[in-house]
Amino acid sequence: MINDKMYALGSQRSEIRELFEYGKKRKAEIGEENVFDFSLGNPSVPCPEEVNEAIVSLVRSGNSVSLHGYTSAQGDKGVRDAIASHISRAHGFEVSGDDLYLTVGAAAALTCSLTATVCPGEEVILLAPYFPEYKVFVERTGASVKVVKCTEGSFEPDVDAIRSAITERTAAIIVNSPNNPTGAVYSESSIKAIVEVLNEKSREYGRDIYLIADEPYRELVYDGVYVPFIPKYYDNTIVCYSYSKSLSLPGERIGYCLVSPRAHEHLRVYLAICGAGRALGYVCAPSLLQKAIPYCIGLYSDLSVYDKNRQLLLTNLTEYGFEVVKPQGAFYLFIKAPDGNSKAFSEEAKKHELLIVASDSFGYSGYARISYCVKTEQIEKALPAFRALAERLGLCGE
Amino acid sequence: MINDKMYALGSQRSEIRELFEYGKKRKAEIGEENVFDFSLGNPSVPCPEEVNEAIVSLVRSGNSVSLHGYTSAQGDKGVRDAIASHISRAHGFEVSGDDLYLTVGAAAALTCSLTATVCPGEEVILLAPYFPEYKVFVERTGASVKVVKCTEGSFEPDVDAIRSAITERTAAIIVNSPNNPTGAVYSESSIKAIVEVLNEKSREYGRDIYLIADEPYRELVYDGVYVPFIPKYYDNTIVCYSYSKSLSLPGERIGYCLVSPRAHEHLRVYLAICGAGRALGYVCAPSLLQKAIPYCIGLYSDLSVYDKNRQLLLTNLTEYGFEVVKPQGAFYLFIKAPDGNSKAFSEEAKKHELLIVASDSFGYSGYARISYCVKTEQIEKALPAFRALAERLGLCGE
Repeated sequence: MINDKMYALGSQRSEIRELFEYGKKRKAEIGEENVFDFSLGNPSVPCPEEVNEAIVSLVRSGNSVSLHGYTSAQGDKGVRDAIASHISRAHGFEVSGDDLYLTVGAAAALTCSLTATVCPGEEVILLAPYFPEYKVFVERTGASVKVVKCTEGSFEPDVDAIRSAITERTAAIIVNSPNNPTGAVYSESSIKAIVEVLNEKSREYGRDIYLIADEPYRELVYDGVYVPFIPKYYDNTIVCYSYSKSLSLPGERIGYCLVSPRAHEHLRVYLAICGAGRALGYVCAPSLLQKAIPYCIGLYSDLSVYDKNRQLLLTNLTEYGFEVVKPQGAFYLFIKAPDGNSKAFSEEAKKHELLIVASDSFGYSGYARISYCVKTEQIEKALPAFRALAERLGLCGE
Repeated sequence: MINDKMYALGSQRSEIRELFEYGKKRKAEIGEENVFDFSLGNPSVPCPEEVNEAIVSLVRSGNSVSLHGYTSAQGDKGVRDAIASHISRAHGFEVSGDDLYLTVGAAAALTCSLTATVCPGEEVILLAPYFPEYKVFVERTGASVKVVKCTEGSFEPDVDAIRSAITERTAAIIVNSPNNPTGAVYSESSIKAIVEVLNEKSREYGRDIYLIADEPYRELVYDGVYVPFIPKYYDNTIVCYSYSKSLSLPGERIGYCLVSPRAHEHLRVYLAICGAGRALGYVCAPSLLQKAIPYCIGLYSDLSVYDKNRQLLLTNLTEYGFEVVKPQGAFYLFIKAPDGNSKAFSEEAKKHELLIVASDSFGYSGYARISYCVKTEQIEKALPAFRALAERLGLCGE
């Protein structure tokens, strides 16, 4: 007599996790160095030394009761103020600590934002390809998912398709740029076009449609590409952020929701997020990590290795005859299945010990995702396998 | 167009929090030392030094990528195994790491356990007085709460009333011993009697009824009182534990669900908890704190100050003519409102700068809760105010 939906979620591993587990098994069989695991989005570079030094200095500071004690549910006020100052400076857009609700990572920021702004029976728009957990998070609220495909090639949002998908039951849209799994960074003109549609449809249906901007990869961009700060363009925006990728702290679960100060029902949305946090069992974000953040604001892990990996893959995979999407951000590369069958492509890659995730998991067929947050050496060693795969698939001669 | 239920939860502060905020304001007005705040259950003693040393040694160990990286969703295997060994030794009851699911504190353990075992439309039994968030957690699952009052005086569970309350829709019962707010520790005979009823009713209705044992205060007991380890008595038990009180780490959010290895659908329940954690946005428990736990297993904060506080309050409040429940555990004292009106009692206490929480918040009228996890000095200084309150209420002469 347990909850079957939860059992299904717990027992059916995601395909990403399934492939990762296969990789572990395979490594045990043929040796770690002979398996090229590109399945997970787990940062491969350490956090800046300042993070660890802040932790040491905080625990050595002598006041354990307050350091490890409950903070207020929305997070320590001083920490929120420090983050708010940084956001205001970085984006030229004034926010205050009272717009921020600190969370146990970006996943919690998403579940709290969705639980706050979505009611059972409503709809949330996802732009495919999308991070698979979005669907889990949306459906848990009792709402349903409406998938809108991005434009193949650029993988920018298809704004006309978004317009057609919005109904009187649309509560929110999730926008994830830099994108997992394509590496696309949505252009300013795309954001402006989405905003126009949201404003038009909000008026038409007499309701606020929330834009939930999932931005764990904000700082992971290449060639100086510009990532529009969405609250500047759309009032009813909630930004979900995490330090998982920028500071390489994915296990520590520290992030935030930023409710735009221009949201029409700012205080009500903010309080609904507090209520959602309470109902889901989030008492506060981990206190030691909260307090370490002000020491590390504006610092980032050394992200240059990701760019090096990106270049290496781009140059060589293209040379071998693969069609790939040039990533502008994040640490994912979207590679086209030559015959359009992503599952068969991922399976064929497996025979060459290349573990890449079929794109069907992301609500989009015909591609596979290569996570290049790995040691550069792994890529160098994997290149002959990619070449052999291309040959097997008839992409390059010899 | 936000979720009104979540807005209500976020905007209506709990009475406990309301009183605490009043206290902060009042302290600013008349001086910190003149307000006697007994509102919150926030540990007042520091964590054992070993916790901080473990944290320092882990961050100095040099492998930041793995230290701060994702663990598996159910928690690091080595950490789970270490906790399982300790539980097995401490209770003479064999459990394995695979029975444990590490959580972001006890609140998360409760929301995950409830989400896993309860379906919309079902019922969960709470024994009043109860921790107010239980109601929030249960109702968020779409189930409803059925409140069964404990026996006044002993504040042991009323087993006949539990029997009458169970229906074919009863999915679970939450048992919290040592209890917040009464300080009662349910006796072995009470636990055995509850188990008998649960077994009888499970048979009658042909379904497993889960016993969710919320045990953050397990180690906070006085006079060597015995706290029955419920999995020994009842197969379908899930223990929710937190290191918040035992190690004074409430802000760090680290705890676990233990699914009894004897649970009839052990694997299904465990996987449903994993699924619930996933759906609620809990990716993993904070990794640094997870990894610090094995260094601190079996250690506890110096809890003797709580016993000292307890004795001081017991002796003096009784002398002043108050009727109090002798606490056997936790750090709460339940004091009777002389005329049965708990709200008026708490308000009258406020006039004497004594901040104690009216028991109505806990689903039980006629009492107030004194949280004595404070400096002993605060109690010493508050005693004249308690005496004056007793005089005002006509409890003692002179």
